[in-house]
Amino acid sequence: MTTLDILGIGNAIVDVLARAEEEVLVRHGMAKGGMALIGPDQAETIYADMGPGVESSGGSAANTCAAAAALGARVGYLGKVADDALGAVFRHDITAAGVHFPTAPLAGGAPTARCLILVTPDGQRTMNTFLGACVTFGEADLDAAAIAGASVTYLEGYLFDPPAAQAAFRAAARIAHAAGRKVAITLSDPFCVERHREAFLAFVREEADIVFANEAEIRALYHAQSFEQAAAAVRADVGLAALTRSEQGSVILAGEAMHRVDAAPAQVVDTTGAGDSYAAGFLAALTAGHPLPECGRWASIAAAEAISHFGARPQADLKALVAGGPKGVAAALG
Amino acid sequence: MTTLDILGIGNAIVDVLARAEEEVLVRHGMAKGGMALIGPDQAETIYADMGPGVESSGGSAANTCAAAAALGARVGYLGKVADDALGAVFRHDITAAGVHFPTAPLAGGAPTARCLILVTPDGQRTMNTFLGACVTFGEADLDAAAIAGASVTYLEGYLFDPPAAQAAFRAAARIAHAAGRKVAITLSDPFCVERHREAFLAFVREEADIVFANEAEIRALYHAQSFEQAAAAVRADVGLAALTRSEQGSVILAGEAMHRVDAAPAQVVDTTGAGDSYAAGFLAALTAGHPLPECGRWASIAAAEAISHFGARPQADLKALVAGGPKGVAAALG
Repeated sequence: MTTLDILGIGNAIVDVLARAEEEVLVRHGMAKGGMALIGPDQAETIYADMGPGVESSGGSAANTCAAAAALGARVGYLGKVADDALGAVFRHDITAAGVHFPTAPLAGGAPTARCLILVTPDGQRTMNTFLGACVTFGEADLDAAAIAGASVTYLEGYLFDPPAAQAAFRAAARIAHAAGRKVAITLSDPFCVERHREAFLAFVREEADIVFANEAEIRALYHAQSFEQAAAAVRADVGLAALTRSEQGSVILAGEAMHRVDAAPAQVVDTTGAGDSYAAGFLAALTAGHPLPECGRWASIAAAEAISHFGARPQADLKALVAGGPKGVAAALG
Repeated sequence: MTTLDILGIGNAIVDVLARAEEEVLVRHGMAKGGMALIGPDQAETIYADMGPGVESSGGSAANTCAAAAALGARVGYLGKVADDALGAVFRHDITAAGVHFPTAPLAGGAPTARCLILVTPDGQRTMNTFLGACVTFGEADLDAAAIAGASVTYLEGYLFDPPAAQAAFRAAARIAHAAGRKVAITLSDPFCVERHREAFLAFVREEADIVFANEAEIRALYHAQSFEQAAAAVRADVGLAALTRSEQGSVILAGEAMHRVDAAPAQVVDTTGAGDSYAAGFLAALTAGHPLPECGRWASIAAAEAISHFGARPQADLKALVAGGPKGVAAALG
């Protein structure tokens, strides 16, 4: 018997969001729409050049966990914060979202990670992450009982960046598989995939049962010329893949089967958290026993909710949105 | 010659906003729409019972300063944060808003103040403030040159709560008047007025040139049976008063003259910062040399912008809103 539907593992981060003009991205040499790792000095420089901000809990897998819990899934999360004010904010928010969060905070080391997110007028987000306490996440932080009791252990690709986390990833996958559970991974970011491409490929081929990726990420993984070529490659490597294509919707690949899923209608305010919420909708429906097209529908609805407001975590009643169907979404988000 | 249009002095606070049902207010015995002072233990208890939150810089006078700067005024601010992460957030946000902020942070003492704000489904905000580092604000934190160089020194009534701040208030008023400048005060909150009623009355009668208050606050100050009775009392005590009445607009009293100002149309999302933005619009227009009815129009537009979104600081382009007139507001906020 499972004790959790989803156990997420990822970088525990507090987001600092501010609206920014394109010229700020250019001035700092940022790759628009991507995530760059920054050190404390660079964090100071970029922050000083940002407008007034809003702080809210983030972290890719943590966002997924919060949204999946809002959809009724039983969810746990592992990730490293520091024993500081922002760490307390992160812990409060994920706990208040109904997610079990057993990881002990880091005492006396680096501060809680933060991600400086610049949202341009077109709603795209460009992220700059100072990993802080996250770099200490390792095998010792794995909660073996939680992993063994979860239907799906969900890993964010960003965790390939902190040095000790890759080994923890592998260990988590072994624990999950030994207990007969599934392992899911999201590729997170094309630059992150490029940084760790061999490790990503090996993990997808050897450990992953479910892969989430957008077009840029899956093409980066296989150095593919086209989306179709990348889709064929991942289909050969994993049993289940969900590939997102922004407003063109998504494609679910499961063995011989392929399901095309429409994007749910939404007014784009801020794309932060869109992919995280997509995975949340998909996994919440999957672990609730729904067929794949329904998983895709939940995923699209959750993603549409995420992009319709400023910030990564859900603000609308996701359960009501998926119950209401596409018409309910348009009414709630329009 | 003035070096600033407005110098604000107040409690430097980071807001933690979360949506909450009425029953949460009842459970904690909160007075809806008011501000209560809480200690660190109570802050823990209330925070634990709040849903996922969003952090953003707040503080009544600081909100006013940020909005006035957005309207083109030259603005400075004095208030005490700690030398911690939330203090850095506060300093960044007010500086990024274009406000001069010379107050040194408190090192090694209480943390930066935070205000736990519960926003009920009707858009009303109920505030619980842990004053933290603010209680150390005193005369030593006054920047005499900044005060003497500012057209208006603007004081928030909440500063009657921290023990050393009342003396600093009086000292600031003396510096301002000695330089031939004006002193403005907002009464902030009816409960705060009740806590310090004699001190408020003395300050209004002896030091204030301009008074801002809503109906509940001005009635609390004079223990008045009606709005009209309170208005008559304040008119006798100060040269200029702006009294707000929510959707009924506001009344500006200046000697024999009285101007009624309509509220600007707005969809109420969260009333946090409405009064702060009203004062910002009023003072920005006043120090720019506009006649009182125009000051009232700017004030109403800024207040409407504040209540149309979650959080206290302006998110729309306030300059464009006041330039566009009432039609521009409806278009931008509708």
